[in-house]
Amino acid sequence: MRHAIAPAGRQSRVERIVLVADLAGTAVFAVEGAIAAMRSQLDLLGVMVIAFIVALGGGVTRDLLIGATPPNAVADWRYPALAFFMGGLAFAFHEQVLGWSGSTLIVLDAAGLALFAVAGAQKALNFGITPFVAMLMGTITGVGGGVIRDIVLARIPVVLQADLYASSAFVGAAVLIIGRRLGVSPVAAALLAGAACLLLRLLSVHFGWQLPKVLDA
Amino acid sequence: MRHAIAPAGRQSRVERIVLVADLAGTAVFAVEGAIAAMRSQLDLLGVMVIAFIVALGGGVTRDLLIGATPPNAVADWRYPALAFFMGGLAFAFHEQVLGWSGSTLIVLDAAGLALFAVAGAQKALNFGITPFVAMLMGTITGVGGGVIRDIVLARIPVVLQADLYASSAFVGAAVLIIGRRLGVSPVAAALLAGAACLLLRLLSVHFGWQLPKVLDA
Amino acid sequence: MRHAIAPAGRQSRVERIVLVADLAGTAVFAVEGAIAAMRSQLDLLGVMVIAFIVALGGGVTRDLLIGATPPNAVADWRYPALAFFMGGLAFAFHEQVLGWSGSTLIVLDAAGLALFAVAGAQKALNFGITPFVAMLMGTITGVGGGVIRDIVLARIPVVLQADLYASSAFVGAAVLIIGRRLGVSPVAAALLAGAACLLLRLLSVHFGWQLPKVLDA
Repeated sequence: MRHAIAPAGRQSRVERIVLVADLAGTAVFAVEGAIAAMRSQLDLLGVMVIAFIVALGGGVTRDLLIGATPPNAVADWRYPALAFFMGGLAFAFHEQVLGWSGSTLIVLDAAGLALFAVAGAQKALNFGITPFVAMLMGTITGVGGGVIRDIVLARIPVVLQADLYASSAFVGAAVLIIGRRLGVSPVAAALLAGAACLLLRLLSVHFGWQLPKVLDA
Repeated sequence: MRHAIAPAGRQSRVERIVLVADLAGTAVFAVEGAIAAMRSQLDLLGVMVIAFIVALGGGVTRDLLIGATPPNAVADWRYPALAFFMGGLAFAFHEQVLGWSGSTLIVLDAAGLALFAVAGAQKALNFGITPFVAMLMGTITGVGGGVIRDIVLARIPVVLQADLYASSAFVGAAVLIIGRRLGVSPVAAALLAGAACLLLRLLSVHFGWQLPKVLDA
Repeated sequence: MRHAIAPAGRQSRVERIVLVADLAGTAVFAVEGAIAAMRSQLDLLGVMVIAFIVALGGGVTRDLLIGATPPNAVADWRYPALAFFMGGLAFAFHEQVLGWSGSTLIVLDAAGLALFAVAGAQKALNFGITPFVAMLMGTITGVGGGVIRDIVLARIPVVLQADLYASSAFVGAAVLIIGRRLGVSPVAAALLAGAACLLLRLLSVHFGWQLPKVLDA
């Protein structure tokens, strides 16, 4: 593995940040994917497949793009096992999870987005990707699973249209990378970046913030 | 290439199983893809492209995920040549193939599914992927081409909804991997696994077996 | 990097052809992607993402398939920077670009198609891919971005249905590869191939040429 920015002594710490954020995001997004799949009338395996896609799609895309092959989701059995466990849990407790309010789901989803934006940007840095592209990799990691889910369910990805969704991931990734450049410690930069993404996403939903559009329908 | 399970003396045999099952599945799925494309009003090249996607999409996805790059479908000209030959054959004999009954198509498709589930699970084992993830790789190899076809044709993948479709591939892959673990010879395990997948799929169509769902529409 | 056909002395020239054609195609397709995204009511970041997808999707797919990882679009910051710059330019000057005539867009698109078909076929040759498969890689590079755009926007890819679209890319790639086989210089083969693709595409639009279909709707 190449390390462009992280000095040798910090290697294990930045890798641990990626692992923890990746696994936590995987758990959160697996539950979300399972809920979306149950609402789309898929059967048990369909629910598991969609949980797998939402939870692991962003990270797999990131790993293929930065050349980290085989992707973690394949090389490390804990990723798919966690996705399937959480998906199965959501299936088993469907009466509870399908009753969750919209706000609960938005907070859950924003947490997953923030975790993956941080994990994606940091891992891209670890692999020697340039800062600008690493911000894009963080964004892709955050939104990738949801985009693939929407593609599979044959609808236009909501993340491309929703209130500052991909933008929040991009800002989170940018905060991480600018913070690291300015000498902030890896853990502090990751926490700041995650908080920035989470906050921006939740505020944009609350206040209905939108990026400018060109055309009115 | 890494070999996690197959001892050195068996290397060529397990690789030959993958090659034979992969090529046979490619031929079967190319015909199926061409039929679907002709029914979707695509022109000759569109038919070839969809034949290519259905025949090779699952294997390409598997190879990218397990780090077997470039994928066989690119590195070995026999794969795309076979897909194009079979797709062209289906186009030339469209009056015949478009008249095939639904049952014929289901048997054909189940055969392709079984071949790819076996090839995918065995190849993942050959590359040192852990057993649980190798079952998922077998499933992805089996259903991948059809999923990509449905995505390209902008419809929800039928495999996520149909009677034990992805489930049959998963069971086939699981039989192969458990069989190998129990010391069954590679050829016998492959035959058992393929038969299990084929049988389960055909029985589930015949009897309308479904996995449990959570919601009623 | 492996070189199957290009002799050592020509290495830098064929690599420069790929780079120039790739970057020019990226610029053209980024503008086109931004226009399509603005017409689909996406916000500023959505426009950037679609510009990125259309401009870089074909090349990323090609690079993953031929084993050139990480893909140029990730390893070389000029690719995404160019895509975002051109996408941003199209957004800033939306009153102008949204007023472009259909013919202007078709010529622009045909130019991008030709550039990517040439870049894709030549790069595949540079990586030791066999000629037949290299033609397919040129086609995929040309149509890949548009196909992914249509998939994301949940519609059947127009390139699979339009007047000799993918076919023109295939012919361009074939001209390059046959030219190189016959000893034509890399630059001349690239120019001939690009011209063949461009001309065939424009003529097929003008005269409404279609490949044969099997069924009438």
